[in-house]
Amino acid sequence: MKSIKSPILLMALGLGLQMQAQDYSSVPPKESPMPMKPEMTEIWEPEVKVVTPGKQLGDAPSDAIILFDGSNLDHWVSQKDPSKPAPWKIVNNDHMEVVPGSGGISTKMKFGDCQLHVEFSAPDKVESESQGRGNSGVFLQNRYELQVLDSYNNRTYRNGQAGSIYKDHAPLVNAMRSPLEWNTYDVIYRAPRFKEDGTIDTKATITVLHNGVLVQNNVDINGTTFYIGLHNYPEAHGDDVISLQDHGNKTQFKNIWLRKL
Amino acid sequence: MKSIKSPILLMALGLGLQMQAQDYSSVPPKESPMPMKPEMTEIWEPEVKVVTPGKQLGDAPSDAIILFDGSNLDHWVSQKDPSKPAPWKIVNNDHMEVVPGSGGISTKMKFGDCQLHVEFSAPDKVESESQGRGNSGVFLQNRYELQVLDSYNNRTYRNGQAGSIYKDHAPLVNAMRSPLEWNTYDVIYRAPRFKEDGTIDTKATITVLHNGVLVQNNVDINGTTFYIGLHNYPEAHGDDVISLQDHGNKTQFKNIWLRKL
Amino acid sequence: MKSIKSPILLMALGLGLQMQAQDYSSVPPKESPMPMKPEMTEIWEPEVKVVTPGKQLGDAPSDAIILFDGSNLDHWVSQKDPSKPAPWKIVNNDHMEVVPGSGGISTKMKFGDCQLHVEFSAPDKVESESQGRGNSGVFLQNRYELQVLDSYNNRTYRNGQAGSIYKDHAPLVNAMRSPLEWNTYDVIYRAPRFKEDGTIDTKATITVLHNGVLVQNNVDINGTTFYIGLHNYPEAHGDDVISLQDHGNKTQFKNIWLRKL
Amino acid sequence: MKSIKSPILLMALGLGLQMQAQDYSSVPPKESPMPMKPEMTEIWEPEVKVVTPGKQLGDAPSDAIILFDGSNLDHWVSQKDPSKPAPWKIVNNDHMEVVPGSGGISTKMKFGDCQLHVEFSAPDKVESESQGRGNSGVFLQNRYELQVLDSYNNRTYRNGQAGSIYKDHAPLVNAMRSPLEWNTYDVIYRAPRFKEDGTIDTKATITVLHNGVLVQNNVDINGTTFYIGLHNYPEAHGDDVISLQDHGNKTQFKNIWLRKL
Repeated sequence: MKSIKSPILLMALGLGLQMQAQDYSSVPPKESPMPMKPEMTEIWEPEVKVVTPGKQLGDAPSDAIILFDGSNLDHWVSQKDPSKPAPWKIVNNDHMEVVPGSGGISTKMKFGDCQLHVEFSAPDKVESESQGRGNSGVFLQNRYELQVLDSYNNRTYRNGQAGSIYKDHAPLVNAMRSPLEWNTYDVIYRAPRFKEDGTIDTKATITVLHNGVLVQNNVDINGTTFYIGLHNYPEAHGDDVISLQDHGNKTQFKNIWLRKL
Repeated sequence: MKSIKSPILLMALGLGLQMQAQDYSSVPPKESPMPMKPEMTEIWEPEVKVVTPGKQLGDAPSDAIILFDGSNLDHWVSQKDPSKPAPWKIVNNDHMEVVPGSGGISTKMKFGDCQLHVEFSAPDKVESESQGRGNSGVFLQNRYELQVLDSYNNRTYRNGQAGSIYKDHAPLVNAMRSPLEWNTYDVIYRAPRFKEDGTIDTKATITVLHNGVLVQNNVDINGTTFYIGLHNYPEAHGDDVISLQDHGNKTQFKNIWLRKL
Repeated sequence: MKSIKSPILLMALGLGLQMQAQDYSSVPPKESPMPMKPEMTEIWEPEVKVVTPGKQLGDAPSDAIILFDGSNLDHWVSQKDPSKPAPWKIVNNDHMEVVPGSGGISTKMKFGDCQLHVEFSAPDKVESESQGRGNSGVFLQNRYELQVLDSYNNRTYRNGQAGSIYKDHAPLVNAMRSPLEWNTYDVIYRAPRFKEDGTIDTKATITVLHNGVLVQNNVDINGTTFYIGLHNYPEAHGDDVISLQDHGNKTQFKNIWLRKL
Repeated sequence: MKSIKSPILLMALGLGLQMQAQDYSSVPPKESPMPMKPEMTEIWEPEVKVVTPGKQLGDAPSDAIILFDGSNLDHWVSQKDPSKPAPWKIVNNDHMEVVPGSGGISTKMKFGDCQLHVEFSAPDKVESESQGRGNSGVFLQNRYELQVLDSYNNRTYRNGQAGSIYKDHAPLVNAMRSPLEWNTYDVIYRAPRFKEDGTIDTKATITVLHNGVLVQNNVDINGTTFYIGLHNYPEAHGDDVISLQDHGNKTQFKNIWLRKL
């Protein structure tokens, strides 16, 4: 907006929204302190860092850590035994597939606040129902599960379907694609903050877009995801790995990247 | 996650994260109330509404209001005189272009909380500098400006560049594309709430992804955008129109849609 | 602070914190916009309303609604049948006492956001234990219970003792006095806000000082107080009465006043 | 509340609010998960710590650090030169008085989140006006000023009067007593949190009761108190001293205590 130098230009522009903004700013606020000059609220330093966005929405921007691009699992290890490689399958140099029974996989790197992009697909062959179909999960900081499930024509409990924070928050809507298509999660995650005594100071928060549709709107995460009982924050922790769950289904993942916030 | 019925499957899966989650949930929390059953935290009703996402990221989902698809300006009026049609130009049945001096344009419909998608491009011909280059703006509820500017190789004050909440919050990073390319804004907006006496109760908040890169992370909007002086909330208001600013540059827009939240 | 006009005085004072504040404000902030003048951040209008505080801490200020001063129950009705008078006992023109079995009592007036002062005492004769001793409750908006209990040498579940938001938040500390003494609750309450569709928009929050000691620090109230199960907000509501609970014990109350916020 | 064991008692009590609570909890919530038992939301451990409150409201509870009880300034040093004793005057073994020109004083101990009680009085002899009358200040963490001023019949800018967060937030009401009387501030303070890079993560918040009347309701503190220009958080900091300002007036203080939160 603004920073108009010429009064003539100003007159020429003295229309539309400028007019409106003029109106607003020329009327002294009720409180009427000494008037300011425009430059007084113009902050120049420090210059904002440039980030080159990806070519397409969903592509990794220049400052992203590419956690998986289809070629290898070098950023991942076995969750059961982090000294071992991730036991899942690479398919067509394009995506990875859960190997049921092999256990979950975790990133080698640890993260806190982040913007995370993940693509996933339910198994092509539709089997079972409810929680048994295409079940997996993205565990932020190895604790807080953004549920992965085949929620396309598959009724289950609302706080356990795709896009839910498992057993904490149902998604706002069900934006799931069919098992033959890929889905995206775009996640804005703020890690929990803890007090020195180890108790929770500020809960984690999460925003999730599922296939571009808002499904979690900056909700508080109420604690570590438990299958049974109320979630809470049993202990303080710092940055931690991101895990993908082996829940016995051949769920597929690709194009995983993350920006530290 | 979970809802495993068979103990055999459970054993087979008794690995990886299940193990971990098991661990967590089988250890009684410090507070140790009477144990629950898994079903007690499984919420089934009401069923989550299905929304069909767009084909590609950026495409409108099934529950969106299409404010502009390139074909006409039927959803828009002149901001100066809402009884008149929007005075901007349609180009190639693809996008609209600001007609400098004609004034801003506003939606006919009024909105509050929303998810908004807008695409924009700076004029192809690069002219002027700082605030003079490719300047426009998206005014949520006709008051709160998400700045539009050509911020590609164009230094200006940080809280006035593309992706800023004008003179309120600089963007986290500068994710601007060149003037020959299109940019996207994906916005999650929460309208301000007011008290009965007209004063502010809860400030508006906004999250913005610029070309898929987070540039505003759930920040408070500190009030109506003023060119001069501190922003505040001079009066209560309800839903209101979205406006696009004529700031004298031939900025281009396309693919504008919105989901009410 | 400040508004020093004379440079001589300024020099004379050029010590201590002035110095420090000087230091801070004379160093241009990193962002270095055009410098302001002190008056630009001095807001004069509207004048702040005068309220005469009570003589002693705990006494009602001039803008309070006196809900109970010891003399009568005119502000209260039977909770079972609001057309009938409050069935509790006035003792010595000083305090009221629960009449067990008569049911709770409610204010005639309805309230939302408020500062509330309540004094209470457990029955002089100590009987029973845990939840059976001196049990009552203050229900904000007839739904959200600030627990009243004899928590002096009386162990019970932590989220059910005096100063708790019943089955929602345990108090930070146990500041309870003996049954022969009076206790105070000073409460700052923000009512929940609801969306047009009746779902919760912003949870209620509460701060409680128990005998001057902070026991609830601006916590979210997670919903209507239920004896069984998780609390939630089953339906939207506006201002509502404040209720005091008959839980079968001769709990005593006095000096109840409220300021609308 | 509750924990009623006898069905007969339950019937006898099946009245008033119990009835209501019954109603609420016996109607399954819309979402209808498997019903819980009352004990499942009764948290027993860890036991809540006992704190003995002061005799009267305003008196220090058992876990408070007594920063000033009228007898000496042992907890305080010169703000100009922390190696020197606090240069203010003790009067009648009852209160301290600013020695104008001697500079401010600071605690030796450093604090973060806290509940703080301070009593103060404007000079008995009324002199000057606006910011010149009875001016001092309580600086939380040596940076964030809760203004002290003689605001009894003394108009000044609203965000600079007693009870204000200086040049940040005006008090909700003016609860000031005359210069011949003592005032109390009861403060609930949450220190700011910073990110690893030194920028602000969560602003400080403050609640203030002035003579028992709410004047600041959990507001965000927008940064270090500057006399000139907008407040911000120029740098990260940890716990820090509390300072009292020498602004050239013989303001008096007494009964200062603090509980770490």
